[in-house]
Amino acid sequence: MSDLKSPAGAVQPFIKKLDSLKFDAMYQNDFFLTWEKTRAELDAVFTVADALRCLRENNVATRIFKSGLGISLFRDNSTRTRFSFTSACNLLGLAVQDLDEGKSQISHGETIRETANMVSFMADVIGIRDDMYIGKGNTYMHTFMDAVSEGHKDGVLEQRPTLVNLQCDIDHPTQCMADLAHVIHTFGGAENLKGKKVAMTWAYSPSYGKPLSVPQGVVGLMTRMGMNVTLAHPEGYEIMGEVEEIGRRNAAAAGGSFTKTNSMAEAFQDADIVYPKSWAPFSAMEKRTKLYGDGDTQGIKTLEKELLAQNARYKDWECDEKMMKLTKGGKALYLHCLPADISDVSCEEGEVAASVFDRYRVPLYKQASYKPYVIAAMIFLSKVKNPQATLLALAEKGSPRQLG
Amino acid sequence: MSDLKSPAGAVQPFIKKLDSLKFDAMYQNDFFLTWEKTRAELDAVFTVADALRCLRENNVATRIFKSGLGISLFRDNSTRTRFSFTSACNLLGLAVQDLDEGKSQISHGETIRETANMVSFMADVIGIRDDMYIGKGNTYMHTFMDAVSEGHKDGVLEQRPTLVNLQCDIDHPTQCMADLAHVIHTFGGAENLKGKKVAMTWAYSPSYGKPLSVPQGVVGLMTRMGMNVTLAHPEGYEIMGEVEEIGRRNAAAAGGSFTKTNSMAEAFQDADIVYPKSWAPFSAMEKRTKLYGDGDTQGIKTLEKELLAQNARYKDWECDEKMMKLTKGGKALYLHCLPADISDVSCEEGEVAASVFDRYRVPLYKQASYKPYVIAAMIFLSKVKNPQATLLALAEKGSPRQLG
Amino acid sequence: MSDLKSPAGAVQPFIKKLDSLKFDAMYQNDFFLTWEKTRAELDAVFTVADALRCLRENNVATRIFKSGLGISLFRDNSTRTRFSFTSACNLLGLAVQDLDEGKSQISHGETIRETANMVSFMADVIGIRDDMYIGKGNTYMHTFMDAVSEGHKDGVLEQRPTLVNLQCDIDHPTQCMADLAHVIHTFGGAENLKGKKVAMTWAYSPSYGKPLSVPQGVVGLMTRMGMNVTLAHPEGYEIMGEVEEIGRRNAAAAGGSFTKTNSMAEAFQDADIVYPKSWAPFSAMEKRTKLYGDGDTQGIKTLEKELLAQNARYKDWECDEKMMKLTKGGKALYLHCLPADISDVSCEEGEVAASVFDRYRVPLYKQASYKPYVIAAMIFLSKVKNPQATLLALAEKGSPRQLG
Repeated sequence: MSDLKSPAGAVQPFIKKLDSLKFDAMYQNDFFLTWEKTRAELDAVFTVADALRCLRENNVATRIFKSGLGISLFRDNSTRTRFSFTSACNLLGLAVQDLDEGKSQISHGETIRETANMVSFMADVIGIRDDMYIGKGNTYMHTFMDAVSEGHKDGVLEQRPTLVNLQCDIDHPTQCMADLAHVIHTFGGAENLKGKKVAMTWAYSPSYGKPLSVPQGVVGLMTRMGMNVTLAHPEGYEIMGEVEEIGRRNAAAAGGSFTKTNSMAEAFQDADIVYPKSWAPFSAMEKRTKLYGDGDTQGIKTLEKELLAQNARYKDWECDEKMMKLTKGGKALYLHCLPADISDVSCEEGEVAASVFDRYRVPLYKQASYKPYVIAAMIFLSKVKNPQATLLALAEKGSPRQLG
Repeated sequence: MSDLKSPAGAVQPFIKKLDSLKFDAMYQNDFFLTWEKTRAELDAVFTVADALRCLRENNVATRIFKSGLGISLFRDNSTRTRFSFTSACNLLGLAVQDLDEGKSQISHGETIRETANMVSFMADVIGIRDDMYIGKGNTYMHTFMDAVSEGHKDGVLEQRPTLVNLQCDIDHPTQCMADLAHVIHTFGGAENLKGKKVAMTWAYSPSYGKPLSVPQGVVGLMTRMGMNVTLAHPEGYEIMGEVEEIGRRNAAAAGGSFTKTNSMAEAFQDADIVYPKSWAPFSAMEKRTKLYGDGDTQGIKTLEKELLAQNARYKDWECDEKMMKLTKGGKALYLHCLPADISDVSCEEGEVAASVFDRYRVPLYKQASYKPYVIAAMIFLSKVKNPQATLLALAEKGSPRQLG
Repeated sequence: MSDLKSPAGAVQPFIKKLDSLKFDAMYQNDFFLTWEKTRAELDAVFTVADALRCLRENNVATRIFKSGLGISLFRDNSTRTRFSFTSACNLLGLAVQDLDEGKSQISHGETIRETANMVSFMADVIGIRDDMYIGKGNTYMHTFMDAVSEGHKDGVLEQRPTLVNLQCDIDHPTQCMADLAHVIHTFGGAENLKGKKVAMTWAYSPSYGKPLSVPQGVVGLMTRMGMNVTLAHPEGYEIMGEVEEIGRRNAAAAGGSFTKTNSMAEAFQDADIVYPKSWAPFSAMEKRTKLYGDGDTQGIKTLEKELLAQNARYKDWECDEKMMKLTKGGKALYLHCLPADISDVSCEEGEVAASVFDRYRVPLYKQASYKPYVIAAMIFLSKVKNPQATLLALAEKGSPRQLG
């Protein structure tokens, strides 16, 4: 990662980069949505992520905590994000304690405010995934974090834990930041992304109800880089209007564009980057949230059936070889948050042809490899007052991550 | 917490206090019930808890273990106590491994003696919650700890793990010690508690079968401090007779009193501290334990119905504003182990009025904040031969809990 | 464990022993089956296990990792092995993250290859138990480890995690190595095992479908030591033919013998060591694996019934006092991987009489106590380039495992 000999030398470029960025507002702060952060703050995350990776690759321990907990709260299944969060916490010296709502007394009529304080007495970080219900996940996180702010202010909590949003109904910032880190490394730097075309497109899947947080997160984040982002989906698969508006504003500010189309081919045409992925229509997710709220099991079943039938009308929205040929030189960078629905592999007909997926398997896995570092960087920047000095101190100490 | 400049200076008062106490019998020993400990030993727990908190607040690492496990065994749901135990272990450097009986081979006909040894090869601490069955929880803990004693004596275990009772059928020592720590801090010192009136009273809840360990623990502990403890409940909601006897004896020895009444108002009258909380009648819990043992599902259902109907006769046992007005200056310290059944919030009619609960929310959360430190202190005192020297060494080393 | 005063002195004998062994191929390598390792490599495991135990008993920290994860994947229930793996990881400084397939998105059509990479970004060790399906468990582990090898080669993984086989369909290496460590210590050294008779015999159990990995592992391992291994079982309870072949070859090479009989008494006659334990016939396990694959619930039930009926014909295969009398001086070392089916204790009629089991309880628990150290040694040898130098460095540093 660096040809400089010592760890201290190797982290110098990252420290210099950080010196050029203003990100002090991240200290003691949460990470909810990428568009609530300045471009410099996002760059700081990428830079610290790279610095931590550089130190780890040089067998330098980056444990800044001698004790402390990272609390994880997954209200939906997770492999990648769970392991990424655990890895990030462990890299910095935090132990992870899962808040398993099933094993807790939370159902016992306890308020979020109370739970938030009760688990946070020695918590430095909270990672929450709550992506299933429209209008609820992000709100839940805010309620939770407001509660610990108040607890800290009131002297209940000695330290205020900071939030890493591990996916909500609006954004999936750790995923999309990892995606973008991968794009930046693939294209040789953020400065090379200007004018690149990104196709964020819907793709067919035989399942339904997949969260909107990835397409929304991509629209909200990639438009920051001066890229030309095209969002493509069949009619009826709209994402949140507010996020589209964010995309438009970001594009205008960064000198790129944000466009929409109902044609996958149009989006793929001359694209540098493609991100074909299934999701449920925003309006259907809203409806489903209401049905769940009402406990309307029959209504949910009916909606499920309708959604699957609706999906089935768009089986041709597959990222196959023909589609890939339309992209820039036929060689666009293919992205996916994984796991993908691969035709003839994980399902009969799915989001992507097996031959396409196989060709991009290594880059896809590399894409995923950024997530632990992105999360660790978010934690680092929220907990460390002077990140440059601390990175340098770690590098100079050079305590080996592994002896022998 | 201290105006002394250095951590070493800041812990001096706690070290001095420890110097005045005799608690050497705690070394390598278990914590089952508070009334099995001397007053000096309880004071040592409070003092070490404060010292550890002081060090943490001064960003001093208190990790005394470089490796080692804290085993948790929850035979009932838990949020607060689970996180408190994890936090305490982590603060001292232990990793927590949960003994999940569902994922183990324990059902496979294995004896407690065997399980106890099999999980303890590298265990320094065992935390057990077993509160549901009368006459069983505390017994289970003793069987478990006898087994590891024998294993240690026989050379099977290199070290003997020590027990922290995380709630049994008789006592809830980590809860009640945290409650008392909060009371001590609120009243400015243990020496100010003499003569204070404590109302430990039953309160209505729409649920049933709540453990008796908190009221019993409070009766067994608060009577140690020379306070006047009044236990109030409707007829039929008696706690264990043995614990009442303990309360009487404690009160006599400490120069306070222990009285009983069937009137909530009488208990609240001029009380300095009130602890209104629902519990199931001891005799019903005994009956239920037998029914579970017999696998009598129909009997359990019938008992459930009876208990709920019985509870419903005492809906006026609510800690409302009228009741609070009866207390000393209308301003008694309101305690609860949480979560509380709050009227119009978590249920229609419950243990406490929303306005009362809200007024005491911050002190209630502070009350809970002592539990991780109380547990850590129990572990510290059972594992460290010379606590004063070790606290001083940690303070003088001043290794930062968090870098940066 | 050593009468030498300092930790550095105490580990010297182990370092000397390691100096005499060639085991460099273990570095960065996996531990699948004991018979894939040379005798010197197995001896290195025993030696490092003893060295780590010696250091721990001298209160010397053996944490070689400042961060890093041990991933555990249990596809079958476990207490002993789970705690042993956790203890071993913790002893070396690794945090354990369980890969709970139920809480993950693995069912979501994800390949093993993908899961393996996704969880391994910061994993140093993977421990897998997959023992239930014939022809599948070991294969699964290889698929998993091939995937991480490829991921490492492709630059996806910075480090390649190494495998500890926590039980597969073929072998149970951590169990059998712990068993053998116990035998070596009991007989005063590996050099004293030559010519000793080992009876690995089937025993009756009222349950069915117990894995074959222990008898197979014992046949594959004990024959390495020049011992005379007799495998005894009723007709129809054959183990894998390939493993019997391994046993024959090992015995020939080590100067011992491998024989088979259908008489428990014949096996026990003059035995120095007996290991009576139930298992399912290999052919039945094969059949069951096929039925599960076909989702043939009725077939599984029928097979279950048949197997229990078949077992019931051999209730006299019990390790009772009469049987023990046949052994060398009536005092053979009794082994079991635990939990055992103890007649009149955990079942009406089982593998072993209560009086026999009780007499060997302490040695049985000691047998189990070697497992955490065996696992730690396997990890140590796969991660540390120069084990002797690292052991010496740990001993010389003498950082206390526990302060105070």
